[in-house]
Amino acid sequence: DRIGIEEAVLAQPKSVGQIAAIIADAMAEDRRLLLTRLQPDQHQALPAAQRAALDYCAMSYTAMLGARPSPRDMPRIAVVSAGTSDSGPATEAQRVLAYSGISATMIADVGVAGLWRLLSHQDSLQRMQVVIVCAGMDAALPSVVAGLVPGMVIAVPTSVGYGVAAGGRAALDAALASCAPGVLVTNIDNGYGAACAALRFANAAGGFT
Amino acid sequence: DRIGIEEAVLAQPKSVGQIAAIIADAMAEDRRLLLTRLQPDQHQALPAAQRAALDYCAMSYTAMLGARPSPRDMPRIAVVSAGTSDSGPATEAQRVLAYSGISATMIADVGVAGLWRLLSHQDSLQRMQVVIVCAGMDAALPSVVAGLVPGMVIAVPTSVGYGVAAGGRAALDAALASCAPGVLVTNIDNGYGAACAALRFANAAGGFT
Amino acid sequence: DRIGIEEAVLAQPKSVGQIAAIIADAMAEDRRLLLTRLQPDQHQALPAAQRAALDYCAMSYTAMLGARPSPRDMPRIAVVSAGTSDSGPATEAQRVLAYSGISATMIADVGVAGLWRLLSHQDSLQRMQVVIVCAGMDAALPSVVAGLVPGMVIAVPTSVGYGVAAGGRAALDAALASCAPGVLVTNIDNGYGAACAALRFANAAGGFT
Amino acid sequence: DRIGIEEAVLAQPKSVGQIAAIIADAMAEDRRLLLTRLQPDQHQALPAAQRAALDYCAMSYTAMLGARPSPRDMPRIAVVSAGTSDSGPATEAQRVLAYSGISATMIADVGVAGLWRLLSHQDSLQRMQVVIVCAGMDAALPSVVAGLVPGMVIAVPTSVGYGVAAGGRAALDAALASCAPGVLVTNIDNGYGAACAALRFANAAGGFT
Amino acid sequence: DRIGIEEAVLAQPKSVGQIAAIIADAMAEDRRLLLTRLQPDQHQALPAAQRAALDYCAMSYTAMLGARPSPRDMPRIAVVSAGTSDSGPATEAQRVLAYSGISATMIADVGVAGLWRLLSHQDSLQRMQVVIVCAGMDAALPSVVAGLVPGMVIAVPTSVGYGVAAGGRAALDAALASCAPGVLVTNIDNGYGAACAALRFANAAGGFT
Amino acid sequence: DRIGIEEAVLAQPKSVGQIAAIIADAMAEDRRLLLTRLQPDQHQALPAAQRAALDYCAMSYTAMLGARPSPRDMPRIAVVSAGTSDSGPATEAQRVLAYSGISATMIADVGVAGLWRLLSHQDSLQRMQVVIVCAGMDAALPSVVAGLVPGMVIAVPTSVGYGVAAGGRAALDAALASCAPGVLVTNIDNGYGAACAALRFANAAGGFT
Amino acid sequence: DRIGIEEAVLAQPKSVGQIAAIIADAMAEDRRLLLTRLQPDQHQALPAAQRAALDYCAMSYTAMLGARPSPRDMPRIAVVSAGTSDSGPATEAQRVLAYSGISATMIADVGVAGLWRLLSHQDSLQRMQVVIVCAGMDAALPSVVAGLVPGMVIAVPTSVGYGVAAGGRAALDAALASCAPGVLVTNIDNGYGAACAALRFANAAGGFT
Amino acid sequence: DRIGIEEAVLAQPKSVGQIAAIIADAMAEDRRLLLTRLQPDQHQALPAAQRAALDYCAMSYTAMLGARPSPRDMPRIAVVSAGTSDSGPATEAQRVLAYSGISATMIADVGVAGLWRLLSHQDSLQRMQVVIVCAGMDAALPSVVAGLVPGMVIAVPTSVGYGVAAGGRAALDAALASCAPGVLVTNIDNGYGAACAALRFANAAGGFT
Ligand SMILES: Nc1ncnc2c1ncn2[C@@H]1O[C@H](COP(=O)(O)O)[C@@H](O)[C@H]1O
Ligand SMILES: Nc1ncnc2c1ncn2[C@@H]1O[C@H](COP(=O)(O)O)[C@@H](O)[C@H]1O
Ligand SMILES: Nc1ncnc2c1ncn2[C@@H]1O[C@H](COP(=O)(O)O)[C@@H](O)[C@H]1O
Ligand SMILES: Nc1ncnc2c1ncn2[C@@H]1O[C@H](COP(=O)(O)O)[C@@H](O)[C@H]1O
Ligand SMILES: [Mg+2]
Ligand SMILES: [Mg+2]
Ligand SMILES: [Mg+2]
Ligand SMILES: [Mg+2]
Ligand SMILES: [Mg+2]
Ligand SMILES: [Mg+2]
Ligand SMILES: [Mg+2]
Ligand SMILES: [Mg+2]
Repeated sequence: DRIGIEEAVLAQPKSVGQIAAIIADAMAEDRRLLLTRLQPDQHQALPAAQRAALDYCAMSYTAMLGARPSPRDMPRIAVVSAGTSDSGPATEAQRVLAYSGISATMIADVGVAGLWRLLSHQDSLQRMQVVIVCAGMDAALPSVVAGLVPGMVIAVPTSVGYGVAAGGRAALDAALASCAPGVLVTNIDNGYGAACAALRFANAAGGFT
Repeated sequence: DRIGIEEAVLAQPKSVGQIAAIIADAMAEDRRLLLTRLQPDQHQALPAAQRAALDYCAMSYTAMLGARPSPRDMPRIAVVSAGTSDSGPATEAQRVLAYSGISATMIADVGVAGLWRLLSHQDSLQRMQVVIVCAGMDAALPSVVAGLVPGMVIAVPTSVGYGVAAGGRAALDAALASCAPGVLVTNIDNGYGAACAALRFANAAGGFT
Repeated sequence: DRIGIEEAVLAQPKSVGQIAAIIADAMAEDRRLLLTRLQPDQHQALPAAQRAALDYCAMSYTAMLGARPSPRDMPRIAVVSAGTSDSGPATEAQRVLAYSGISATMIADVGVAGLWRLLSHQDSLQRMQVVIVCAGMDAALPSVVAGLVPGMVIAVPTSVGYGVAAGGRAALDAALASCAPGVLVTNIDNGYGAACAALRFANAAGGFT
Repeated sequence: DRIGIEEAVLAQPKSVGQIAAIIADAMAEDRRLLLTRLQPDQHQALPAAQRAALDYCAMSYTAMLGARPSPRDMPRIAVVSAGTSDSGPATEAQRVLAYSGISATMIADVGVAGLWRLLSHQDSLQRMQVVIVCAGMDAALPSVVAGLVPGMVIAVPTSVGYGVAAGGRAALDAALASCAPGVLVTNIDNGYGAACAALRFANAAGGFT
Repeated sequence: DRIGIEEAVLAQPKSVGQIAAIIADAMAEDRRLLLTRLQPDQHQALPAAQRAALDYCAMSYTAMLGARPSPRDMPRIAVVSAGTSDSGPATEAQRVLAYSGISATMIADVGVAGLWRLLSHQDSLQRMQVVIVCAGMDAALPSVVAGLVPGMVIAVPTSVGYGVAAGGRAALDAALASCAPGVLVTNIDNGYGAACAALRFANAAGGFT
Repeated sequence: DRIGIEEAVLAQPKSVGQIAAIIADAMAEDRRLLLTRLQPDQHQALPAAQRAALDYCAMSYTAMLGARPSPRDMPRIAVVSAGTSDSGPATEAQRVLAYSGISATMIADVGVAGLWRLLSHQDSLQRMQVVIVCAGMDAALPSVVAGLVPGMVIAVPTSVGYGVAAGGRAALDAALASCAPGVLVTNIDNGYGAACAALRFANAAGGFT
Repeated sequence: DRIGIEEAVLAQPKSVGQIAAIIADAMAEDRRLLLTRLQPDQHQALPAAQRAALDYCAMSYTAMLGARPSPRDMPRIAVVSAGTSDSGPATEAQRVLAYSGISATMIADVGVAGLWRLLSHQDSLQRMQVVIVCAGMDAALPSVVAGLVPGMVIAVPTSVGYGVAAGGRAALDAALASCAPGVLVTNIDNGYGAACAALRFANAAGGFT
Repeated sequence: DRIGIEEAVLAQPKSVGQIAAIIADAMAEDRRLLLTRLQPDQHQALPAAQRAALDYCAMSYTAMLGARPSPRDMPRIAVVSAGTSDSGPATEAQRVLAYSGISATMIADVGVAGLWRLLSHQDSLQRMQVVIVCAGMDAALPSVVAGLVPGMVIAVPTSVGYGVAAGGRAALDAALASCAPGVLVTNIDNGYGAACAALRFANAAGGFT
């Protein structure tokens, strides 16, 4: 938080014991805490008192401890996703923003194979300061979105898929090679990173005042 | 031609001597001939008489020998390309079709970063029986096209680009992972293959009559 | 279905709850439904009433809801597979076609290491308008088939195998690099995509009448 | 420019004839023009009159036509580079920003193997709204910078290097996997893309007023 | 041990029967034994008497049989790790050294995104003869350490991570491409190899006396 | 030659000076010499006297010095190639065998897209003790050949091709994943290695008598 | 068996039902049968009567049905392996040979890090007509063996290992790039393929008499 | 040199103008200078006075300016190489050491396909404190050497080769996956890095006195 962004705890590679100790410390010191990639079986294995204190979301593998700031709509941020399968990282981004008091607009299931679905949101999207676009498979969505809006576009490639799409490298490369100018990209499935970048936007747009 | 598709000569890996011998044979027997991937320096090194007899196109690296059938509009085939850089394979497809007497509709520079360009051709595209889509970089175009048209969609990923796009693997994987149903794909830069597939369509749609 | 191809539901990445909701909607509205990549354990976890209503096939991971059109033999489509291991995607293609009322000819276990097996089907294959070829490992079959038939050839590389064949990239690359002209390729294991392309063929060959 | 970002011309894959025609059009219509990845031999082959009209930079392969807006310091943007070898993309970013009237602060040769070089710029960096970080090889610099500053961090992985670093994939993956929260990434060597993203920041921070 | 380095037993790919037989032999002959990558379920399946005799560590998957030499501080070796997730290989290195009687200094959780954490250990690190650096993700730590210390730097890339970091290839390539001179690298997660190299250092620095 | 196989000189990575020195030594000692991958420009730069003494073949990049044993037909070895583009490695194999006094049967241009070409050689192939099969692109030929013959089958994947075939990895993987039992494989373009393996066959079949 | 090599059944990708049907057929017709890659859980799920009739080996995942020919020592074949971890494919090769009546010499645990172990078998190895070398990790063993023996050398790269060795691609590439002349290679873990190639050797060395 | 290792100038990615300026500075200040990867055409393009002052070696692409310390034999370092093709990085390592006053023992052309060549140097190698092993292709040499010597073993994988060996990734992976304990690895062709690591050894073994 020396830079205005609270570090989250990356839970997945940690043992349940390690995670419980981190939570216990925070509870003892009455600190807020954000955990990412906390797997359902890890969550299930935590002490009951910790589970009761945590706000856990199994779709995004995130957990939060402590009060949340009342949400505000500024800066204007949208989280757009192409298909049902991209809802994990999209929700991760949404909740990380919520943890910092920002309420993002969610726009789901607007993959480019049915353009009219995306175009019906065009006006709303053009008013956004930051648009986070979660897309797997061919990740065509960030390119189309970036051609429509003047704000920042952050692509989160997702890993769901099979064949050449499995693991998300195809989606990642498509996002990096986007034919639209100024698309920025995070690691595969890194909704957390996209949200942190949006927090940096908030820092910077506020002029550090 | 046992299957109704004349084999072309893949010139690039052959020596000039080998190519000249193949052309000489065809000229002696008064046969038509189609050469693909004939590099400018290979073409330049051929005997003057052969150069005079060939219809060579440096953009698509194709050369044709002999009379061309008068072009017809059926089946209805379009060759769509995303950017200037995709014009090589697009022109290759066009000329291979022309060699078989089919006049394709060319639609260029309709990359998805500026959707209105593509949408202005929507009516024409929806009447096509086969749409060949040449696209490099993120190859988002085949997915968008396939969402708009009922006919066959053949994606030709192209190799121009830098970074993760260099060589065309990113475009290939994006085309294969397309979120639109029924997109078929050729090897990178294989406009010839796409045209041959369209000829197979003509064979099959004609019912082999 | 704006383009004459009904969208299927890609079940594998969805939660059982999401899938059940989609099926419930369709049942409530008396709509037909096609699900692909529905894993046995996902299927098993659905409500009994939904399981009873679904026609599920564990080999191809497909499920259908609602009446099926009476099957017809036109257009003439064959689904050819190289080995026992390719029967998953082959059956997926067959059932997606059946869902649209097309009865395909199935030709199995004709890998090129025993050429006589394939050659015994040569006459039948040459009458087909579309031949879908499912093959893993070295995926030599599409090249041999495409040398024998005048119709459309759609290769579906399959993922079964070990060592360099594991995951299907070797089969995919072999199909894309086919030495036979006009072979088109889908993503690995994408029998659904091949069937959709065949439906596009039916659309286009019918002239959109 | 429908979205407030002028499209640049990607010159490298185009023929000299195509490039000259584009420049001629712009000169005839008295329009400004930005070309990227214009190779020295392409530049050299342009008509003398065009060469005289262009402001060409061989280090960044960029060329500009027309008057440049007088530079301003807002938003506050720094372009940081790790080694001499990263100066190509760094200069590309600088000049694309200059073309839009933004004067960026350049900080060069601050690779992490000599930390004191970077730390001496710490105060200046912490005041920046956007920091573009160009780094090849192990691309450790974006992670270190992002740990020091509250503003936006855009990593441009560069391609110079040998062995595992050749082509820039190692640098790209390191940037994407950064252990610092909120680092965003462009395609390899894409200084243009980073600058466009900074222009999107300017759009968005200005609130589209 | 012909070369002064006792071979360890790589347990993971062996059956429990094979491992138990090796341990039984050592116990019968009253020999010491070091096992690496012994998975918890393998350990659990060993005979109780063997389990009682073994000093097993589930974090590093190592087991030791027999008396350990009393630990000494020479040569001066540090094991540095970037994050909690790197503690597996770090502990493996520590225990392999301990098995040979060398007590290494452990410095954990000093990833470069928070430079001050590393810099607070700078004096200690500069006195070390060998610094083993365990880091995953972007593996920026070895480069920064190597810029600070005059002794040997051995990077152990780790495999924990997701997206492009999964499996450790990104960390490996970053370590190999380090911009700091004289960084040496082991296979991914190979804390054992790093410790053996440190033992070779001890051999060599002692002049084989 | 301790093992009955004379080592060849791999010329390509050597300087002309190094190559000339090796040839001079052999000439001085009146020894025979075989050079592989000697590029035309390297050959051209050798002293005229050396060039006169060498039997050089630009298609296979091989050069031989000294008398050749009179050729014999035993063991019975065929070198089969799929296309014109595979003639480089095929000729390399032929000449390396000739250098050891074995006259191989050459069968060219029998790619599987035109099966009848291969089948017309079936009787001859079935009598062979070793069949070396050179094939690029999809490398379907080794699988088909191995289904037809009882003798040894050695696949030499070749590198000519574009897109996914460029460099030969697709052909290599297809050959390794062959669905026919007992296909053995060399490095890409390694006609020399295939010939050496055939010499090992001759050694072994002769019983080392 | 048209080519003198009985096809094995590749069990792993088949369902238990499919496998049981194949075995039932063979038992009904009193035919011998060889199954490869039959997993323990697949084996366990077979009908008890079939399990009783099968000779199953869990280390090599092979099963045989029917009488085995009495073993003979000709041709002289050795199966060499580098480490305990390579015993799976080594045993697979041994048993496939045994199924055809050939008794191979097994030489285990002779990895090159302890050269003396290999060198103690040098005389025996030099008398072999075929040496099958199973090695994972760095796969240095085939190169060293091929430098010592005049007979055929068949490398079987194995998949056991971690980091860059995981999956066997590193071992495969090392075997293909072997600096020793005439090393031939199979797919990763393909002991079956190596044995079939040795049977082809037996066919060919026997002159097909 | 804050850490006792003088930074070299990596010349290849720099323009001739940049290199000349760096040399001019050093000459003006009478400083010593080491340049690596200075290509022959870059060297040729330098001012004649600079060329006269430089000690340039075209085989290793290194150049040195200024007096060299008189060479000493301590620490005892050997540079071993497998084939003629590895002499570039081997010589680079030798000259970087020489620049720091260390005279290394050179042992060339001892690839493992002819074991007796290496074994004849066994005594000498076993006395070395550091052995730098340069090897391309299958890179089997580091494993064999590490099994023979008690000192530090640093593998430098080299890039020369074709097919799977091209670029050096196969050699790199083999070195990393070495079955011998304690092999350390540098980037491909990084003889400079290996020499710097040896200088770190000298620092550390000297106890920083
Ligand atoms: N989902 C995530 N993806 C990437 N980085 C994360 C994620 N969650 C937490 N982090 C970062 O990982 C670091 C925490 O690592 P650790 O100390 O191992 O918990 C912090 O720098 C976090 O900002
Ligand atoms: N097996 C499949 N392979 C590829 N695409 C599929 C498959 N099944 C369904 N789809 C497509 O995936 C999309 C449905 O995604 P979703 O909305 O997540 O169910 C539709 O466009 C379908 O056409
Ligand atoms: N372990 C194996 N590795 C490679 N090919 C095998 C293996 N076992 C059997 N085969 C081959 O796979 C084919 C059998 O496939 P299937 O008809 O699916 O049983 C035959 O051609 C066998 O020669
Ligand atoms: N051949 C080389 N391989 C790797 N790093 C090198 C090489 N030569 C010089 N360096 C390092 O590269 C940096 C010099 O980069 P530069 O400032 O661009 O000259 C220094 O840290 C050197 O230690
Ligand atoms: Mg959907
Ligand atoms: Mg354009
Ligand atoms: Mg079969
Ligand atoms: Mg520098
Ligand atoms: Mg931490
Ligand atoms: Mg041909
Ligand atoms: Mg062992
Ligand atoms: Mg040699």
